[in-house]
Amino acid sequence: MPRIVDHAERRAALAEAVWQVAREDGIGAISVRRVASAAGWSGGAVQYYFPTKTALLQYAFDVVGQRTVDRIHAIADEAGAEQALRSSIMSLLPLSREISAESAVWFAFMGLALAEDKLRKVAEAGHLAVAQAVRIQVERAQDTGVVEPRLDAEDVTLDLLALCDGLCVQELYRPWVLSPERLERILDAHLARLAPVGLA
Amino acid sequence: MPRIVDHAERRAALAEAVWQVAREDGIGAISVRRVASAAGWSGGAVQYYFPTKTALLQYAFDVVGQRTVDRIHAIADEAGAEQALRSSIMSLLPLSREISAESAVWFAFMGLALAEDKLRKVAEAGHLAVAQAVRIQVERAQDTGVVEPRLDAEDVTLDLLALCDGLCVQELYRPWVLSPERLERILDAHLARLAPVGLA
Repeated sequence: MPRIVDHAERRAALAEAVWQVAREDGIGAISVRRVASAAGWSGGAVQYYFPTKTALLQYAFDVVGQRTVDRIHAIADEAGAEQALRSSIMSLLPLSREISAESAVWFAFMGLALAEDKLRKVAEAGHLAVAQAVRIQVERAQDTGVVEPRLDAEDVTLDLLALCDGLCVQELYRPWVLSPERLERILDAHLARLAPVGLA
Repeated sequence: MPRIVDHAERRAALAEAVWQVAREDGIGAISVRRVASAAGWSGGAVQYYFPTKTALLQYAFDVVGQRTVDRIHAIADEAGAEQALRSSIMSLLPLSREISAESAVWFAFMGLALAEDKLRKVAEAGHLAVAQAVRIQVERAQDTGVVEPRLDAEDVTLDLLALCDGLCVQELYRPWVLSPERLERILDAHLARLAPVGLA
């Protein structure tokens, strides 16, 4: 192995390989060997960064949590005050094949995390980070008159996150029920009901 | 084995044992042998009813789907027209240790189901049956003036189911955030926003 390598980049490439294996063959197929093969590395090289399957999974899911948060912030910044909350929530809904695949892997990971403390911590941290990112947008929406300011910001955040998670769950099992049009309609009706009373 | 046995009862006892193993040791621990031991049966006796682990899981999750639906109908009948929808939804929220444990196992099962077609079909059927049971209550609530009748019943059903599934997901990872009081407050606020306009 060359001595000068970008470790962060190599780790990120491995995280990508973990996700690729999970999407293609299910999360049960993830192993150091399978990920090495997907990344075009030797098993030993993978183990240099991630000695165990659990370490691999921890990192891969940590990356996806962080990516989700970064996406929320970027989309909210771009959307402008009026649309920031709606656009943030849209980024969490299974509106594209990519987000659907991501959510399928995420839920399968959650299944594993329930039985393994180290993974559970990653799942918890991911949920918390996404919740905080959404809450910032909820508070902003209350400031700008998009959401009724007298509502409890944490309750609204939990309600909206539940909507996203729940729609992802439904989309996993009954995708034909949730067309993108229906998802958008449900979200818009939901948000309209959070609008300041008198403007609704 | 005695020739006169209540097969339905024996199958139900096995389903119970599958759930017990899943709650105690995680869904990964389920095997014909482990379930036999939990039920106090021989491995051969279990295999007489369920030749494979997949068959065991299929049946156990089918039972839980059916039980959830029966519970919704029973609770709704008891609650009376005004409270039927609220009580139905309450029965799906992680308000007790029992329902939390059930939801943890259900989500772990979903993780498995994503990688195995036979299990996916059970998960799909379970979701559909619960959705139909909730939809009956939504339509009833629209008839009795609890929910705005101009709202699309299927959209409202999907929105409420998403709320339940999503709150269960959150409760799995950050249980300390969702006290029973908060769960009830979020649900009541959510339902209040579905009330007929003018009565809200």
